[in-house]
Amino acid sequence: MRIVSLAGGIGGARFLRGLRAAAPSAEITVIGNTGDDITLFGLRVCPDLDTVMYTLGGGINEEQGWGREKETHVVKEELAAYGVEPQWFGLGDRDFATHIVRSQMLEAGFPLSQITEALCARWQPGVRLLPMSDDRCETHVVITDDRGRRAVHFQEWWVRLRASIPAESIALIGAETAKPAPGVLEAIEEADVVILPPSNPVVSIGTILQIPGIRDALLPKTVVGVSPIIGGAPVRGMADACLTAIGVETSAQAVLDLYGADLINGWLVAEEDAEVSLDGVVVQARPLLMHDPDSTRAIAEATLTLANSLNP
Amino acid sequence: MRIVSLAGGIGGARFLRGLRAAAPSAEITVIGNTGDDITLFGLRVCPDLDTVMYTLGGGINEEQGWGREKETHVVKEELAAYGVEPQWFGLGDRDFATHIVRSQMLEAGFPLSQITEALCARWQPGVRLLPMSDDRCETHVVITDDRGRRAVHFQEWWVRLRASIPAESIALIGAETAKPAPGVLEAIEEADVVILPPSNPVVSIGTILQIPGIRDALLPKTVVGVSPIIGGAPVRGMADACLTAIGVETSAQAVLDLYGADLINGWLVAEEDAEVSLDGVVVQARPLLMHDPDSTRAIAEATLTLANSLNP
Repeated sequence: MRIVSLAGGIGGARFLRGLRAAAPSAEITVIGNTGDDITLFGLRVCPDLDTVMYTLGGGINEEQGWGREKETHVVKEELAAYGVEPQWFGLGDRDFATHIVRSQMLEAGFPLSQITEALCARWQPGVRLLPMSDDRCETHVVITDDRGRRAVHFQEWWVRLRASIPAESIALIGAETAKPAPGVLEAIEEADVVILPPSNPVVSIGTILQIPGIRDALLPKTVVGVSPIIGGAPVRGMADACLTAIGVETSAQAVLDLYGADLINGWLVAEEDAEVSLDGVVVQARPLLMHDPDSTRAIAEATLTLANSLNP
Repeated sequence: MRIVSLAGGIGGARFLRGLRAAAPSAEITVIGNTGDDITLFGLRVCPDLDTVMYTLGGGINEEQGWGREKETHVVKEELAAYGVEPQWFGLGDRDFATHIVRSQMLEAGFPLSQITEALCARWQPGVRLLPMSDDRCETHVVITDDRGRRAVHFQEWWVRLRASIPAESIALIGAETAKPAPGVLEAIEEADVVILPPSNPVVSIGTILQIPGIRDALLPKTVVGVSPIIGGAPVRGMADACLTAIGVETSAQAVLDLYGADLINGWLVAEEDAEVSLDGVVVQARPLLMHDPDSTRAIAEATLTLANSLNP
């Protein structure tokens, strides 16, 4: 069985761990969001790719959901001692090594997809991890603060401001000319089923869908999504702030409407959202809280069961 | 009083601490060797400049003489876990931050001299630290090993091979077209005295003297040197391996001859080398072992006393 899953960061990575457990013999290709990538201190940081890689590779800080376990922060403290900005992004020492390797390979001319493969040679995530694109695309957010109306990098809004200032708009800079990374369209073409984990529908899944060619490639496939909204609130993170920015209600129904019946064939919602419906989409209600590996695996199994039932 | 001192790494840095103590009201400009600079993991490392900066700024690992105190090595271990080479160069986490800041500024287009000034804004070394040149010059060493006759970077010979394979020749790549960094020739011009610490006469002091214009600028000045050789052996390090490579005996006399009477006006040797002499050079014998801050200060005071006695 060949599975393609799109993925953002923490929620997506945890879901993927369940998916791998639910389908141990499947070939799983993960198309990772790179819209929240950022260059810090001259080093290229890919938070979502790394969260997937560390989570599936056994190196994640389980408690916070991102970054490395047993992490230290000497380099960050030293950079702060030099007065170097930004100081609001939490890079640990172990994590720095990943960014150093990646940046050195980028400098040497390797594309991000090959670099990700090289990094995964260490982590052995048990899935094939592809960036959505080798081209640099970064999500920016328009806000108005005491410095006026301006666009800031997604990470500044998300991490520094904790999304406390409303986003007036969200744009993926560079999307128009970006190409899917090598292997992305081929993996979709060959996939038996495509899964959308409960990642952020705007700045994770929505970002991947903006890369020209990816959404079109998904339309003929059997696509099953897991709602990232339960009873009107995000499962985790601040997806509501992103949905509000693009004029979409924070509900399992609204996210399904956003994705659209042309893309989605099956939609898993939580039991309190059982009334969600859309013509042409099979909606099923299931417990959707990823409490632990077992409950996460059960959700992943439900997506596969639904997908298989929809497959011709 | 205006003092210019050339400097290599550990020995030079310790001497400079003594010089600063011996002449607390002097304006001291240090011209630092950058011939052993190296790019590792995409980051620009300047071992000698950093050793001077950390030593005079109170951040040095006193025991080993280079690197930061209370150092950790998480980043290096992680890079090794990725299989990234080289693994023989000992970069600590605190030290990494310095190289990250430097590399980011280089990438932004700043010259090394301005970067060094920016780094010193934190460390406050109490001297003006200038790189010998903003142009990239790197010392390479020709060796013959099981891979044949080849040139390796100085650090590979010095750190990885511990100079265990004879150097057939030593060359400063890039020297012909390098220019002294801004301020170097002006500082020499304005100096009352110039001091050569007991740094390596080949790959530290000798390197600085190879930058076109520096040696010529020194010729009319009162220059006093401290022999790096005591009784036929280097005070520290492996200067003998470097001297042998250029066909010079490891002796206080031979190093003085190498520098030449056109450059040197005064030469401090250890008491067992009291017979050293060269026409036109005033040679004085003194205890030259830098046991501790007090003995180091006494050596520095002796250089200044000798220099002042030679000044018109």
